[in-house]
Amino acid sequence: MGHIQVPEGAPGILGPMAVSRETTKALRELADVLLCGQNTLTPAEREMIATYVSSKNECCFCQLSHGAAAAERFGGNYDLVDQVKKNYAIAEISGKLKSLLAIAGKVHQGSKHVTPDDVACARQQGATDKEIYDTVLIAAAFCMFNRCVDGLDTWQPSNPDDYREMGKIMAREGYLRPDWEKKGEAA
Amino acid sequence: MGHIQVPEGAPGILGPMAVSRETTKALRELADVLLCGQNTLTPAEREMIATYVSSKNECCFCQLSHGAAAAERFGGNYDLVDQVKKNYAIAEISGKLKSLLAIAGKVHQGSKHVTPDDVACARQQGATDKEIYDTVLIAAAFCMFNRCVDGLDTWQPSNPDDYREMGKIMAREGYLRPDWEKKGEAA
Repeated sequence: MGHIQVPEGAPGILGPMAVSRETTKALRELADVLLCGQNTLTPAEREMIATYVSSKNECCFCQLSHGAAAAERFGGNYDLVDQVKKNYAIAEISGKLKSLLAIAGKVHQGSKHVTPDDVACARQQGATDKEIYDTVLIAAAFCMFNRCVDGLDTWQPSNPDDYREMGKIMAREGYLRPDWEKKGEAA
Repeated sequence: MGHIQVPEGAPGILGPMAVSRETTKALRELADVLLCGQNTLTPAEREMIATYVSSKNECCFCQLSHGAAAAERFGGNYDLVDQVKKNYAIAEISGKLKSLLAIAGKVHQGSKHVTPDDVACARQQGATDKEIYDTVLIAAAFCMFNRCVDGLDTWQPSNPDDYREMGKIMAREGYLRPDWEKKGEAA
């Protein structure tokens, strides 16, 4: 299983990440600034955008790991994450986040699907230009991460419970060098 | 024109890049390690993969700027880049690069299109696991960059000649802080 040889037991992107230190550093730093860096969108909102795009791309590892991080960032509300993935329009989130998820969903579809109306709607809900840009960038970045995970056919546990501990650490530590990577790794 | 306000005259991704110093640093570092870092794939081959994926995503800015960089890296051979974009199977490039472009094209289509046969074919042409990973990662990264450029409806010159100077500098200086960004920018 898996298109390339990676360390046994490393799920999802952690497998390929273990084979290339230089690109992994750049990927970790990008994930960290996008999801945990200084921003007027909360880390919870940004993790939710990442989770939603990953669910649209049907990426098991990313939607469950970032879904767990999003749930932890929303005070342990795993139901909310499930609601957003099923139908964010009726989820208990802000109108602004709904309008940004609409844009993120368009970015998932392809490069040219975001319309002036999508953007106008987000502005009407109070989103700034920077927040619209960050949403597009997070959505686009997860189209990248999802493609790395599944384009290499990596091993991914399918039980959501297996991601809870990882999600807690992601929410607490960010992405530069989290605990779950340090364990048992010599690099 | 353009979904968000960016500095006038900044084409493609340079517009949004000007509005967020932190994410731009991470994006620049990722582009640089992917396309110019130490690697058994040449920068010319990697720029060609980036160009091909950008052409599949119909991203004018990325396919013309990285196409110019690829052409410069291939000794000024702009015809070769056009051949690859039109039909790489009959272009004068190595069998290995053709097999990697096939994988890159699958990554463009979505997360789950790369098959064991695609990977076996690349291995048969001499590609290593690391080269297959780097190909998937470059293709995935350009699915991200293309989505930033077009998802924000950025301004992009359509004349290929307008990208030649930029391509030369990209091929010579890389992506960390190239000349064409320093000009007229205070940041």
